Amino acid sequence: MAVYTKIPDAELNAFVSRYAFGHLQKLEDILEGVENSNFFLTTDVGKFVLTLYEKRMKAEELPFFIALMRHLAAKGIPCPQPIADKAGNVIHTLAGRQAAVISFLHGRMTKAITPTHCAQVGTALASMHSALQDFAQTRANNLSLEGWERLICLCTAGADGVMPGLATLLQEELAFLQHHWPSPTLLPRGIIHADLFPDNVFFEGRNLCGLIDFYFACSDFLAYDLAICINAWCFSPAHVFEAEKAAAMVAAYEAVRPLSKAEKEALPLLLRGASLRFLLTRLYDWLHHPEGALVKPKDPLEYRAKLLFFRDHGASLFTRIA
Amino acid sequence: MAVYTKIPDAELNAFVSRYAFGHLQKLEDILEGVENSNFFLTTDVGKFVLTLYEKRMKAEELPFFIALMRHLAAKGIPCPQPIADKAGNVIHTLAGRQAAVISFLHGRMTKAITPTHCAQVGTALASMHSALQDFAQTRANNLSLEGWERLICLCTAGADGVMPGLATLLQEELAFLQHHWPSPTLLPRGIIHADLFPDNVFFEGRNLCGLIDFYFACSDFLAYDLAICINAWCFSPAHVFEAEKAAAMVAAYEAVRPLSKAEKEALPLLLRGASLRFLLTRLYDWLHHPEGALVKPKDPLEYRAKLLFFRDHGASLFTRIA
Repeated sequence: MAVYTKIPDAELNAFVSRYAFGHLQKLEDILEGVENSNFFLTTDVGKFVLTLYEKRMKAEELPFFIALMRHLAAKGIPCPQPIADKAGNVIHTLAGRQAAVISFLHGRMTKAITPTHCAQVGTALASMHSALQDFAQTRANNLSLEGWERLICLCTAGADGVMPGLATLLQEELAFLQHHWPSPTLLPRGIIHADLFPDNVFFEGRNLCGLIDFYFACSDFLAYDLAICINAWCFSPAHVFEAEKAAAMVAAYEAVRPLSKAEKEALPLLLRGASLRFLLTRLYDWLHHPEGALVKPKDPLEYRAKLLFFRDHGASLFTRIA
Repeated sequence: MAVYTKIPDAELNAFVSRYAFGHLQKLEDILEGVENSNFFLTTDVGKFVLTLYEKRMKAEELPFFIALMRHLAAKGIPCPQPIADKAGNVIHTLAGRQAAVISFLHGRMTKAITPTHCAQVGTALASMHSALQDFAQTRANNLSLEGWERLICLCTAGADGVMPGLATLLQEELAFLQHHWPSPTLLPRGIIHADLFPDNVFFEGRNLCGLIDFYFACSDFLAYDLAICINAWCFSPAHVFEAEKAAAMVAAYEAVRPLSKAEKEALPLLLRGASLRFLLTRLYDWLHHPEGALVKPKDPLEYRAKLLFFRDHGASLFTRIA
């Protein structure tokens, strides 16, 4: 589970009374989620999500994420709407943390991913990119080349203990990507979600109905967001690439926002970068999570398999999926 | 049915392409509603409501209603969120009308009203009033004393043809209310919904989950909004007052926003005013609707019965329901 902070009753009631959404009926822990403490907050007039932002969230960055969600919700992208209190404030302090209430979204994540799901993710991703073209704020991606370099430094000592040869693979891959990564002006940029994994997408029946967890959103190549989604959605549970899913996702993305020639050519490289990014954060968490931590770290080797696949077969992928 | 305007396909597709919510999947007529043409608009990323504003909507007033819905949605009141296009614009022209897209709300109106429903309406109404305390815009209520006087002028000639003695009743009631209506500073004022009838409130199971149709919203006494809701929700289908429903509604309202002594004392008068207001607009529509109109006018005499009830028994109601 991932509720790190308990809220004293008196403090909770005082908090809820600042809002116009009626009295508190119940507060329930949300067990999903890794970074922050999340609760379903049910009041007289509806169900909401209350988030307490834990230590990884920098106080000065929260207004960016709130503005981002508000912008997207106002354009019809199915994402949480930040809720303001009676005085118009969204960001509060509760139980010693920054706190915010956002709207509750119906639906649930899918456990059995089909090409249809992948197509809907492609559509939603392109729609989100399109909706953010006039969003004025930016946020650096601290999990791109420099961040990868830093994580490799922090993981090199332990990497071969996870799998022999992993440290060398990371170093070689970083060197390759540092040399070949597109320059910032080469490909269209904008705000990307950067973490649109299956646990951050809700479906109702067969229809996508919600995108959540925008707390990795940052400024980067739009096609890199697509590369992250292909990594996250288009492999079998045994980590075998499924071209049909990727083709469905890319085609649906392009039906909303066509990729340029340069983006298509860069896609194999972006796919390798996305694999490395999740390999590195998972490896870091694997090596550094404390004993008895609430959240079980995810398997880093899943992304080693994906990285090797894109390294060895990425160049031929373009003609197959895009 | 109430879809007055058909939208040419090419114009519709051009309209949808201005938004970031993906491609049009289908457009369905919404048969409910009287004033405007409404459609369910389903796109790649969700379901929305498209409204074409017909002649009763003044172009200069639409921004007020859009700002009002946006303000309420941002505070967690379950109401439609206006959807902006890629450029950030909400109000458009389509098929020669002003047009706007708002979010779709789940739920449906209740056909069998219970005291529990009435309590939830009371809670939601008070929450809405509370959420609007810092809403800066105002809009005159053109269906208060002066509007009633005007409607009586327009209906006097036909009133007795609907029911003998009705013209005299209207004149006497107007004279009474003109003499006794509270002065603007006597009671708390704010933005009121002014039309929160059962067809404008959605429930999911037993829970209120949506308030819609804010196009009569205006500045007036907050307690007058409660009086309108008591008129709309707290009578049997045979127009017999149901004190248990009214008591539940008022108690729930007061749990969020307690009524002042002056408001409680004014409530019987406000109830008469609310009855007269709906009697008059229904009578006007009854007398003036064109042959072959799409919308069947509602029975004005329902509100004659309510008016007579509050005229004859209103003074004793205070101790029973508030």
